Amino acid sequence: MLMKVIEEIRNFKNSTISAEGLEELKEAARKGRLWSVLATSIANSGHPAGSLSSMDIYMTLLGVANVSLENSDSQDRDRIVVSHGHTSPGFYSALAAYGFFDPKEMYSNFRRTGSPFQGHVERDVPGVDWGTGNLGQGLSAGVGFALAARARGSEAHTWVVMGDGGQVKGQVAEARRIAMKEKLFNLTAIIDWNDIQISGRLNEVMPFNLPELWKADGWHVIECDGHSYSKIYEAMKAASCYKGCAVILCRTVMGKGVSFMQNIPDYHGKAASGEKLEQAIKELGGTMDMFDKAIETRKGPLPKGRKVALDKVVLDLGTPKTYNKDDKTDNRGAFGTALAEVGQLNYKKEGRTPMLVFDCDLVGSVKTDCFAEACIANFVETGIQEHATATVVGAASVAGVVSVWAAFGVFGADEVYNQQRLNDINRASSKTVLTHVGLDVGEDGMTHQCIDYVGLFRNTFGWKVIVPADPNQTDRATRWMLSEPGNVCLAMGRSKLSVILKEDGTPFYGDSYTFKYGDIDTIREGKDAVIIAMGHFAGRAVEAHDILAKQGISAKVLHCATPLGMDSNELFKIIGKLPVVTCEDHHVNTGIGSIVAMMAARAGIAIKLKNMGVTRYGFSGPSSEVMSEMNLDPSDIADAVKAQLK
Amino acid sequence: MLMKVIEEIRNFKNSTISAEGLEELKEAARKGRLWSVLATSIANSGHPAGSLSSMDIYMTLLGVANVSLENSDSQDRDRIVVSHGHTSPGFYSALAAYGFFDPKEMYSNFRRTGSPFQGHVERDVPGVDWGTGNLGQGLSAGVGFALAARARGSEAHTWVVMGDGGQVKGQVAEARRIAMKEKLFNLTAIIDWNDIQISGRLNEVMPFNLPELWKADGWHVIECDGHSYSKIYEAMKAASCYKGCAVILCRTVMGKGVSFMQNIPDYHGKAASGEKLEQAIKELGGTMDMFDKAIETRKGPLPKGRKVALDKVVLDLGTPKTYNKDDKTDNRGAFGTALAEVGQLNYKKEGRTPMLVFDCDLVGSVKTDCFAEACIANFVETGIQEHATATVVGAASVAGVVSVWAAFGVFGADEVYNQQRLNDINRASSKTVLTHVGLDVGEDGMTHQCIDYVGLFRNTFGWKVIVPADPNQTDRATRWMLSEPGNVCLAMGRSKLSVILKEDGTPFYGDSYTFKYGDIDTIREGKDAVIIAMGHFAGRAVEAHDILAKQGISAKVLHCATPLGMDSNELFKIIGKLPVVTCEDHHVNTGIGSIVAMMAARAGIAIKLKNMGVTRYGFSGPSSEVMSEMNLDPSDIADAVKAQLK
Repeated sequence: MLMKVIEEIRNFKNSTISAEGLEELKEAARKGRLWSVLATSIANSGHPAGSLSSMDIYMTLLGVANVSLENSDSQDRDRIVVSHGHTSPGFYSALAAYGFFDPKEMYSNFRRTGSPFQGHVERDVPGVDWGTGNLGQGLSAGVGFALAARARGSEAHTWVVMGDGGQVKGQVAEARRIAMKEKLFNLTAIIDWNDIQISGRLNEVMPFNLPELWKADGWHVIECDGHSYSKIYEAMKAASCYKGCAVILCRTVMGKGVSFMQNIPDYHGKAASGEKLEQAIKELGGTMDMFDKAIETRKGPLPKGRKVALDKVVLDLGTPKTYNKDDKTDNRGAFGTALAEVGQLNYKKEGRTPMLVFDCDLVGSVKTDCFAEACIANFVETGIQEHATATVVGAASVAGVVSVWAAFGVFGADEVYNQQRLNDINRASSKTVLTHVGLDVGEDGMTHQCIDYVGLFRNTFGWKVIVPADPNQTDRATRWMLSEPGNVCLAMGRSKLSVILKEDGTPFYGDSYTFKYGDIDTIREGKDAVIIAMGHFAGRAVEAHDILAKQGISAKVLHCATPLGMDSNELFKIIGKLPVVTCEDHHVNTGIGSIVAMMAARAGIAIKLKNMGVTRYGFSGPSSEVMSEMNLDPSDIADAVKAQLK
Repeated sequence: MLMKVIEEIRNFKNSTISAEGLEELKEAARKGRLWSVLATSIANSGHPAGSLSSMDIYMTLLGVANVSLENSDSQDRDRIVVSHGHTSPGFYSALAAYGFFDPKEMYSNFRRTGSPFQGHVERDVPGVDWGTGNLGQGLSAGVGFALAARARGSEAHTWVVMGDGGQVKGQVAEARRIAMKEKLFNLTAIIDWNDIQISGRLNEVMPFNLPELWKADGWHVIECDGHSYSKIYEAMKAASCYKGCAVILCRTVMGKGVSFMQNIPDYHGKAASGEKLEQAIKELGGTMDMFDKAIETRKGPLPKGRKVALDKVVLDLGTPKTYNKDDKTDNRGAFGTALAEVGQLNYKKEGRTPMLVFDCDLVGSVKTDCFAEACIANFVETGIQEHATATVVGAASVAGVVSVWAAFGVFGADEVYNQQRLNDINRASSKTVLTHVGLDVGEDGMTHQCIDYVGLFRNTFGWKVIVPADPNQTDRATRWMLSEPGNVCLAMGRSKLSVILKEDGTPFYGDSYTFKYGDIDTIREGKDAVIIAMGHFAGRAVEAHDILAKQGISAKVLHCATPLGMDSNELFKIIGKLPVVTCEDHHVNTGIGSIVAMMAARAGIAIKLKNMGVTRYGFSGPSSEVMSEMNLDPSDIADAVKAQLK
């Protein structure tokens, strides 16, 4: 523990670091470098040189920032994001120096199967606030944390440490602009500028002008020696006092502290071994005995990581609104109305979890305009910058706010699939609302037809997907989602829909209905066949039912709004031995139809099955025509049922 | 046809435009604006105001650029990319003015279901070189075209017209840097700077400094009046003469030419109707009769789009290399060797299709280093900028070169899923090689484990995916892929693998083997059960077969490298009534196992089926251990087969 350092510079208490403090930092950094080399050499993989390069930044930062093992679970503390997640040995070592865990435990178990000390920083390690590894994501996460802190009325500061190679990722620039627009002066970026990336020097791989990029987006640029604790401290102080967004460019040396690694691209992604390892350990004041002991420790029990939990959301979810027979509205309208109502009920109320709603230049189309008007301080316009936005929303969602982003399907899912995957890996609680999915996107045509929203999230392990049938179910699902922990995607089309009715003419998803994830709803009973619909195809399935009824065929209509949450036993109990037609506004091979098929085959059940859905890119025209042209009309569904009965 | 204009300014023949030429442009633009208004109002949707804003740019550009209906099918002509694809009515109108098609046909059938004149520019329309719609993609496509032209030794120039709102997409900055690094002086960007995006003025939605962004990346910035043909022409001439990358910022007025649309955000995405429509038509010198007639025409036969075809690739594919029993190598090594050999055989040879190979700072890991060394002029390092790269590769692939990108799975598939989807929509011929997929990525951990490569491309309609079993099949698939038209993804893990052998000890995919897309290979015969493997799990399946054989169980081993290309009839003929275990290094719900399940259910066949695969995010550790921990060892597969036999 660097007690002197903490005493002097935590929250910028003193104006300078004393000689004693500097000595403490120097010694901690020496050890940290040794542990980093040990970790990578014991694992025989990983990135030693970048860890050595960033070491002095990490050591100084952990002295300044209001983070400790004790306040790890608090929302209202500083946050540190390490964007170049492959420098994990370096950051882990600095955390160990500050008492977050035992360094031996770390370096002995680095990159060991089952260990929390993974190759890229992950949230299982105390002190890691956001898991990274895919470059260029960290600043966006930092923006999310800073926005969440502001929404909570917290003084907490967010620090983002980044490598230099990843600076060319477009997402970094997007995040810079959001920070500037939102005046996030509670956010500081620090760049380890060692001029080396994995394939060589920056100028050889992809030339760019680092200070100019930041300046072009309006950031204040501070340069300093990244191996001088005093200079780093001075720069951090200047940055945090600056009334604007500031970045610190730390001039560093790749591999700093180990003579044969210094300024050599080769050790970016290679561990030292043999004589080189002995030399490195010696230069850093260690002994091979440490290495040998660690190899032994590595055979022992696995260290335990921490379990990060999401805060319980405290929101008044209001009273569900029921749309009746003649209230033809669109699901996105029902979503927008429910969102605005819940927003207003809780806006600036003591004790409630703050809500943040994000938009990428589509506020009118995605119906977040009412929320924006009613709760202006909690509405964040991030422009046409979806990659950054997806990560901002994810990070904010683990920092004590309810974080909602509404977008067209192709922007909120397709364009940012990897960011959403990383939100899953980070066990975030992002609420992504897709208002234009399937062929139901108006006349925009195939580039805007998101026919893969289920097929994409099906590749993750945590995302829940809800595809409501009508405005009533949308209203209930919206309210449910807002207080549900974890990542949830609520997906809907653009068109106005009739309310799904019971046979008695009252709303099916009416006053007595409660949304439950995983439910399979029987909308119409039937004894000859089963139609399974997803989303707005529930209405089409009911129409098909009516067509068939006139012809003496009795078709059961099921709706499942949660294709990834169906229970196989329950489903096949309902289906029995009847032939099945599935129908959906989704790619026919990756949506609910293919899931039912997969479940049937795994259960060893032979059902007569027909999957209806999108079988090629759709045309540009009114949605109903585009669907008709794809043979997805109610009459087509009825025909398919009849064909199954032959 | 603007004959005078073409005579004067095509390829910058004259230094200025004559009064007669200017008159021709003015009249064509008036008509073009009228057609744009008609198109959107007839469709009752679309983006009139942006079309009007870009009109004078389009008209001037089509005069200058070496593009015509006649040379549309040539590779060695100029290319125009419209990045803000929603201004399609404007660009279509300009194309019509230059004789690409009949304007009446266009505006009568705009956004009509089944018409080639879709809401966003698509390649079905003659004169459209790249379909866009999702913003921020166009400059990347332009970079691809410019690189392809250079590789072909062509003098052709590439022009990219962009809107201003989409300038904040990070991908634009990535493309700028690639262009600068590659010294693409045969590329000019033109920006329609009208200061309005869909939700309002730029500064309200997301402030940014347009000239500074371009300057920060080293581009030369030219500003001009975007409604003055002379000024636009002058700027285009200056840009194309400039020895560097140049962008023209055209100051324009949103809705230019229709008084009530000018400078009003509302008409960004709304068509005029009623009295407003009458007024607009009148201001533009048209009559309501045109509108009425077009409404009638719209009920008639659909216009036909063109069919774009890919050029036949001419390459010497060399002689397949056979790895034998003791040649333990990795699939990525086999890919790299084959690629370099084919590269060398054809490098700078007259009459061969040029190859371009792209890298995002991973050249050593993805094994394109040998190609880079042998064919340096055709190797393009694009840095850690995957979004731009995916689009660059796609666009180049339709412009007369073989276009190959090798990357880790999470970067070449997950991070750029939407760009790859748009490559599919554009019927491109991108070759994406993923060298680190599944859990087989070394110790990098879950952020780097691409367990969804099949699950992602399964959402498209055109992508082919190949997951080779061993280095021999990788060698054959690599050569096959290089001359195969269409988008192909070749996916493999990182580890060294044993060669798959026949029972007689000779290579299964040896000298007599030819890769055929869709083939299901029987590696071992068996009568008790079937193991279906994908990719490197073929080796594990053979090991399981051997374990079972010792216990008196005879398991057939099938390998299918092309999960999206299997024939259902053939598969179930081979399987018969035997129980099946599928195994793969992929998410268990979205890879080959789920495809087999889907096919079985659709065929109405009840098989006893067990899907083995990745069931949660993997740990960070040696791949073999991570797989073992996921219960995917050969012994686990053998156990699963035994369980199926109970």
